[in-house]
Amino acid sequence: MKEKGLLIVLSGPSGVGKGTVRKELFSDPRTTYEYSISMTTRLPREGEIDGIDYFFKSREDFETLISQDKLLEYAEYVGNYYGTPVDYVRETINDGRDVFLEIEVQGAKQIRDKFPEGLFIFLAPPSLSELQNRLVHRGTETDDIIADRVETARKELEMMNLYDYVVENDHVTLACERIHAIVLAEHLRRDRVEARYKKMLEVE
Amino acid sequence: MKEKGLLIVLSGPSGVGKGTVRKELFSDPRTTYEYSISMTTRLPREGEIDGIDYFFKSREDFETLISQDKLLEYAEYVGNYYGTPVDYVRETINDGRDVFLEIEVQGAKQIRDKFPEGLFIFLAPPSLSELQNRLVHRGTETDDIIADRVETARKELEMMNLYDYVVENDHVTLACERIHAIVLAEHLRRDRVEARYKKMLEVE
Repeated sequence: MKEKGLLIVLSGPSGVGKGTVRKELFSDPRTTYEYSISMTTRLPREGEIDGIDYFFKSREDFETLISQDKLLEYAEYVGNYYGTPVDYVRETINDGRDVFLEIEVQGAKQIRDKFPEGLFIFLAPPSLSELQNRLVHRGTETDDIIADRVETARKELEMMNLYDYVVENDHVTLACERIHAIVLAEHLRRDRVEARYKKMLEVE
Repeated sequence: MKEKGLLIVLSGPSGVGKGTVRKELFSDPRTTYEYSISMTTRLPREGEIDGIDYFFKSREDFETLISQDKLLEYAEYVGNYYGTPVDYVRETINDGRDVFLEIEVQGAKQIRDKFPEGLFIFLAPPSLSELQNRLVHRGTETDDIIADRVETARKELEMMNLYDYVVENDHVTLACERIHAIVLAEHLRRDRVEARYKKMLEVE
């Protein structure tokens, strides 16, 4: 039996720049993980290509897949379904390759239940450092702005609860470096390496 | 209260190249952690400087420190004591900076007991990949050589048990990259980031 690949889930609040980070990651030749393309019932936007940006499906087809339990997670946003086809993810992981998903927080929550062994990365807006700056320069900020930032921080804090790592998206290049480091480190965890050793010694 | 720094412990079988990796790490400007200099009763070798390579102490002074519980770990090798002064480590960590130790496996074991929250990295000789090669090219190797490599792998497997990560020292540059990635990833663990957030929100 092969060593399984990692399921890497990148998520975070909407608008944080998940798509930009994902594109930057996959334009880097060091990136060895495979991108799991989402499925959606929304219409392609200009320049979007079926099978590259999304798998575009009819509402009827999507609902058939839901009923057949063929989606690792799915959700409806503004009248359209979005989801992750399960077969591709399972096959790739079982084949020893890492899979990368970029999804909304609701979807990440569903996956955590089904794949607790996944690697969950929360992409955070730079609000933590920003908040720190605002608190330090308190005199120059209105109380409303600070209260607003504190409220945002509180919401982010609640959201990040089910994740393993938090990566701040202050700069897309830095965010990608951090994600690379996390994936590399996870592959070096003793339990993984030890399992590989043990498998080899069993053969003897 | 400040966020504590990490205690990073690099260890591994003798002869694996711990010292070389440590020197390479500390010649890299990205390395922000501080090196905890060991203490020894052995005489300085040519070129070694007190306070840089080691703190050189008399046997009497060393035994006084042992009796005062001023050593995080210590051991005797070939008639000489080697140990880690505890004060420097505690002060640096409490000040929020990471400390890096490079020590023998016996010392790492003592530290794991006292500092279970430390980050323990096992530097492994490239015997795992080597063994794999040998098993693959079985026809071209004598049974004795293979049996010998299997025995070594078994011993390494036993040793790595108390470590969090395993870094293969196939190339010193690659080993350093892996260590950098591990330390970066550890700083991004959700529990650490979350604690930082919470502290800031408590201030409010």
